[in-house]
Amino acid sequence: MGAESVSSARVPEIPAFDHDAVLSAVSPKEATDRVRDGFVEYAAGEWAMPAKVYLDASPNGDFRAMPARGAGLAMLKWVTSFPGNPQAGLPVVMGVICVSSSVTGKPLALVDVRSVTALRTGAVVAVATQELAPEDAITVGIVGCGLHGAWAARCLAAAEYGPGVCFDPDPEAAGALAGELGWEAGSREDALACEVVTCVTPGASPVVGPEDVRPGLHLNMLGADGPGKAEAEVEAVSRCELFCDDWEQASHGGELTGAVDQGAVTREQVRELGAVLTGEVPGRSGPDATTLFDSTGLAIQDLAICIAVLEAHRAGQVSGRTVRL
Amino acid sequence: MGAESVSSARVPEIPAFDHDAVLSAVSPKEATDRVRDGFVEYAAGEWAMPAKVYLDASPNGDFRAMPARGAGLAMLKWVTSFPGNPQAGLPVVMGVICVSSSVTGKPLALVDVRSVTALRTGAVVAVATQELAPEDAITVGIVGCGLHGAWAARCLAAAEYGPGVCFDPDPEAAGALAGELGWEAGSREDALACEVVTCVTPGASPVVGPEDVRPGLHLNMLGADGPGKAEAEVEAVSRCELFCDDWEQASHGGELTGAVDQGAVTREQVRELGAVLTGEVPGRSGPDATTLFDSTGLAIQDLAICIAVLEAHRAGQVSGRTVRL
Repeated sequence: MGAESVSSARVPEIPAFDHDAVLSAVSPKEATDRVRDGFVEYAAGEWAMPAKVYLDASPNGDFRAMPARGAGLAMLKWVTSFPGNPQAGLPVVMGVICVSSSVTGKPLALVDVRSVTALRTGAVVAVATQELAPEDAITVGIVGCGLHGAWAARCLAAAEYGPGVCFDPDPEAAGALAGELGWEAGSREDALACEVVTCVTPGASPVVGPEDVRPGLHLNMLGADGPGKAEAEVEAVSRCELFCDDWEQASHGGELTGAVDQGAVTREQVRELGAVLTGEVPGRSGPDATTLFDSTGLAIQDLAICIAVLEAHRAGQVSGRTVRL
Repeated sequence: MGAESVSSARVPEIPAFDHDAVLSAVSPKEATDRVRDGFVEYAAGEWAMPAKVYLDASPNGDFRAMPARGAGLAMLKWVTSFPGNPQAGLPVVMGVICVSSSVTGKPLALVDVRSVTALRTGAVVAVATQELAPEDAITVGIVGCGLHGAWAARCLAAAEYGPGVCFDPDPEAAGALAGELGWEAGSREDALACEVVTCVTPGASPVVGPEDVRPGLHLNMLGADGPGKAEAEVEAVSRCELFCDDWEQASHGGELTGAVDQGAVTREQVRELGAVLTGEVPGRSGPDATTLFDSTGLAIQDLAICIAVLEAHRAGQVSGRTVRL
C-alpha cells in the first residue's frame, strides 16, 4: 500500500482456457507424466502447497481454496463439492483456476476447473498404478464410471493398461465407457477380479470387503473425499500395504480415515506417493502384496496440469479467449 | 465424484468486470454503505470468513487466498502483495476475485481485484471515521497519497468529511490528490493537525509519535499490513483507545502488533469495528479521547463490494465481457 501512484500500471489481458481447450492441450498420457513430475518436485521440496481452506456452504456443499507454487507459477484452485448438484442438472465440481507468475505476481491465465480436475484425478491413478502395481499387472477393473472414473480409465488406457471391466450401478455409464476404450462392461465381482482395481464411487457404502483382498492386487481408491465416506471396509484396508497422496488429507477425510480412527492403521504404516517416486521410501514389498493407494486430490496435481496448458499455449498449440481484469 | 455422467452439464459463460466497470458500478459512497453492512452482517454471525491462506513467493512477495460467504454468495480473492513491484512498473496488488453462488456453487462472475481492493480499503476508513471520530470532527489529514491513500480520501470526501490536507514525500502525488478533491497539499505536521488523520504509508518507519496524540483526534492506520511494519510508535498506540477490523490480523500483522508484542496492549483493550457497529461494545468514550482504528483488510469488505457490482449488473447499470470456463 501507499507506494504506488494514483494512476498505476494496468494489468494486461489474460487468456481463459475453457474445458475443450484444456482437453485439447493436454492428453491423458501427458497429464500422467506431468502429475508424476509434480509429485516428485513437491517431495523434493521444490514446490510449495499450503493447506487448503474450506468455506462451508451447508447444507448443499462446500468450497475449497487450494493454492500451490512451482515452476515459476502460483496457482489457486477455487472449487466446489456440491454432491447433490447432479439432481439439479449441475456439476458437483465447479469453479475456476487462477494462474499467476510467482516471480512478478502477474495473473497469467484462468483455467477451467472441471477439465483440470478430471485430468489430474485420472492421471494420479495411472502414476500410482505404474509405481505400485506388480510389474506384470495389466487388466483393469473400474468400479464407478462417472466423470472421474472415466478419466481414471482413460489415463490407465493411455499408460497401456487394459483391457478392463467397467462396473457401474448405471449400466449405460458402464457400457459407454467400456465402448469408448474397447473394454467390457461387467459386474462388481468381474471388475474386482482384475489385477488393478480403481474405485470411484460416491463413497456412501463400501464396495471392497476383506474377501476381495488377494495377493498381487493393486487398489486405487478415489471416492472417499470427505469425513464419513469409505469405499473399503476397515478390515480390507488394514490387510493392505498402504499408500496415499498426502497423509494429512488421507487420514482426515480419505479412504484411510476410518482405519486410522479405529486405531487399525498408524502413520508409520502409510507411505506417500511422492516419497515412493523419489526413492525415499519403498513401494510394494513384492509381487504377492496387496497395495492400496488412497487418492484425496492435491493442488500440486492441478498445478502440474496448468503448467502443461500454459506451455501448450506458448507453443501455439491451444488458444484461449482473452479476459481483461 | 462418481455420481455424474461422463457428459455432464456445462457451466455457462460468466461476466468479467474489469477495473473501470467496477468503479463505474460502485461509487465511494455506496462502497462505504456496503462495507458498513458487511461488518454488521459478519459481526451478527450472518456472514462467514475462514482465515486467509498465505502462499509465500520470497523474495518478491506473497499471494493470499481470502474466502468469504454472505448474501447467497461465496467469494474468493486471490491477491498479491509484491512491495517492490512499482519499481518494475507493476502494481503491488494483482490477482482476481471469483464470485460463486453459495446455494448452487455456480460461478457467477470474475471481478478485478485492484478496484475492489481500493474501494473497500477506502470505504472502511469512512465507516470507522463515521463511527469513531468525534461528532463534530470534519477536517482530514492524509499521510501517504498513493493508491489506497487516495481512495481513503475519496471515501471520506463522499462521506462529507473535509476539507483536508494531503501529505506525501512525493509532492506530485499529494498535489494531484488535493487538486482532485479541492483540498490542500501540506506537510506531515499540517496533516496531523487535522481532526481525522489517515495514514497509508509503506509502514517502513513510524509517522505518528506520542507527541501527535492529542484529545479528540481520530487516527485511521492502514499501512502496517505485515510483520515488522508500523506507522505509529508503540508509545503513541498505547495512549489511544484502540479499535481494529479483526483482532487476529491486527495483533499478528497490523498496527497493533508491536504494542501487543511488547505487552503494552492486550486483547481486552481492543474493540472490533463490527461489534461497535452492532452496539455490542461502545465506541469512543467521549469527545476528548484519542481513537485509533487499525485496518488490516478483510475478505468481507471485498465481498460487500462484489455484491454491489453484481446488483448493478443485474440492474443493467454495468456490463462485463463474458468468459467461458
